[in-house]
Amino acid sequence: MTTLILEVPGMSCGHCESAVKGAVGNVAGVRDVGVDLTSKLVTVAGENIDVNAIKVAIDGAGYEVVAQYERS
Amino acid sequence: MTTLILEVPGMSCGHCESAVKGAVGNVAGVRDVGVDLTSKLVTVAGENIDVNAIKVAIDGAGYEVVAQYERS
Repeated sequence: MTTLILEVPGMSCGHCESAVKGAVGNVAGVRDVGVDLTSKLVTVAGENIDVNAIKVAIDGAGYEVVAQYERS
Repeated sequence: MTTLILEVPGMSCGHCESAVKGAVGNVAGVRDVGVDLTSKLVTVAGENIDVNAIKVAIDGAGYEVVAQYERS
C-alpha cells in the first residue's frame, strides 16, 4: 500500500470534495481517497498508483494540483 | 519555504491538536502548523526545518509520528 498526498487549493466546498473524490477514486489501483477542505490536501492510498493519472483525473474534474508529497 | 506533512494517528481531539501545534510551533524555523484530526495529518511550513527536531517535539507532547511525507 502506497500513500500519496496532493495539495489542491481550489477545493472549497462539499461539491469540490465529491468531485475530486469521485475522479481520483476511478484511477486504477486507488483504494481510498480522503479530502480535507481546510488544509486543501487530498490523501490517496492504493497499490501501484500512477501519480500522473491521478493528476490528470483531478485536472479533468476542474482542479489544479500545486504540490505532491510522497512518503520518505 | 519548505512544507512537510506528518501522519500522527494518535491525535483525536482539540486537546491533541493544541498540544501538537504548540510543540511543533516551538521548533526552530517553523512558521506555520496545521492539524487535521480527520486525516491525522500535521502540515508544517517553514525555513530550514529539521524533521528530526519536529518528530522529537511531537514525541515529547505524547504522540507518535508513523509516517512523513516530503514534497516531490
